Amino acid sequence: MIIDGKAIAEKIKSSLREEVFPPEADQPLAGKKKIRLAVIKVGADPVTEKYLEVKKKFAKAIGVDVRIYEVPKDISTNKLREKISEVVRIEEISGVIVQLPLPPQINTQYILDAIIPEKDPDMLSARTWGRFSTGKSKILPPVIAAIKAIFDENKIDLKGKNAVIVGAGRLVGKPAALWLINEGATVSVIDENTKNQEDYTKKADIIISGAGKPKIIKPYMVRDGVVAIDCGTSESSGQIVGDIDPDVAKKASIFSPIPGGVGPITIAMLFRNLIELSK
Amino acid sequence: MIIDGKAIAEKIKSSLREEVFPPEADQPLAGKKKIRLAVIKVGADPVTEKYLEVKKKFAKAIGVDVRIYEVPKDISTNKLREKISEVVRIEEISGVIVQLPLPPQINTQYILDAIIPEKDPDMLSARTWGRFSTGKSKILPPVIAAIKAIFDENKIDLKGKNAVIVGAGRLVGKPAALWLINEGATVSVIDENTKNQEDYTKKADIIISGAGKPKIIKPYMVRDGVVAIDCGTSESSGQIVGDIDPDVAKKASIFSPIPGGVGPITIAMLFRNLIELSK
Repeated sequence: MIIDGKAIAEKIKSSLREEVFPPEADQPLAGKKKIRLAVIKVGADPVTEKYLEVKKKFAKAIGVDVRIYEVPKDISTNKLREKISEVVRIEEISGVIVQLPLPPQINTQYILDAIIPEKDPDMLSARTWGRFSTGKSKILPPVIAAIKAIFDENKIDLKGKNAVIVGAGRLVGKPAALWLINEGATVSVIDENTKNQEDYTKKADIIISGAGKPKIIKPYMVRDGVVAIDCGTSESSGQIVGDIDPDVAKKASIFSPIPGGVGPITIAMLFRNLIELSK
Repeated sequence: MIIDGKAIAEKIKSSLREEVFPPEADQPLAGKKKIRLAVIKVGADPVTEKYLEVKKKFAKAIGVDVRIYEVPKDISTNKLREKISEVVRIEEISGVIVQLPLPPQINTQYILDAIIPEKDPDMLSARTWGRFSTGKSKILPPVIAAIKAIFDENKIDLKGKNAVIVGAGRLVGKPAALWLINEGATVSVIDENTKNQEDYTKKADIIISGAGKPKIIKPYMVRDGVVAIDCGTSESSGQIVGDIDPDVAKKASIFSPIPGGVGPITIAMLFRNLIELSK
């Protein structure tokens, strides 16, 4: 079975729209304040622009306001942090996100740490991460919420399952590892330093890959019936490709591809987090 | 080789003493403010008392002040949190720790979260954890610093090593997993739900156990030359025993036992953290 991320995202979109704009009400949120997302954009770049358009379209569809705060590409870390602190303080704004990646002169984590947990739908500040990993957070990082939606939809129980995470990055690998550990799975995190990666992947009930390296997980590396969730994106001759070779789908019981898998669901979950925070 | 935790702790103690009380100075810290550790103690209990005595003795030896704040066993979570916030605000105090475990009526994480990262040598608040896991912290959780000291002392390179962590607890398993991932090891976290635990332990270059279950890691489960670090403590007929069967020492290249291994080093690292925070 191949996951249709767009279809799952559409379902979430409909339910969020109803939450923001109930059918019986004649205006969004039945007269309550409009939910607003602030996006900090450093410089302009066609790829970033494309991702941003997707978010804006989603927001419009569910009745959420998006405000773009654009700052010049050569801004200093301190100036950018000041700017974000300023935006965070605006009462009408329920959530602030920073369009990543940031230019090389910027200390990214220091910038993300300017967002308070109460306004951090992307959950990338150190404080929000602390809440997530000590089990104190009501929301999940969007990509984790997207993976969870796929598991929930397919009634996959995680307790005692062998889960292998490929890549130990801040956006996918580490939060996925922590979340799966909390869910009672047996978790192995492998990366490019791992000898005999197949020893791990062949025994995996679940593979979550976030390495960002084209097609590194090949069919011979997985067992029949594996649940394979691709969260890695890279570009290969102008095309977006995932970490997992599409032929893995033939052996997998559930396969979430790139593109079209977790990506659209992750955007939906960003907005679900925003609405949760706005409450 | 069997690790002598007491000997390593003694070395750290000497160097900390020199830092607090330089040989050429005629008073601690060459006239600077005395370093003070506050310990919040909820109720009295002989086991807790014993652990506390060890800390007091260590503090005395290096010239650090310990102040005990005892509150009644039936205190509410809110009252305890207020008390801690009050102690945290005292300027003369460089660090605050809470003697664990807390009574069952208390929300432990909420209590620990009252300690600001600047005064949190045990590194148990969500904010401090966030700093640690995003790589922003200059200090490490004491038990992780103790494990690191053993690895450093024995020149063990972690990159690409197969590390298996037994138990996914908040005090040992989770921070050890995160730290080893950051160090480039391939990390598997197994627990009581894991099927075929030996599949993992037999391939491990490094085993760190923090399950708190007596002698669950048996010699047949490990390979020759393994580095085995026991961080699990439980009681069995009045004796402190570790997670790792002492006979594992015969197969291990390095074996850190319970008792006498990471325990004394962990206490030394708590004070090293305190001194670092006081700077």
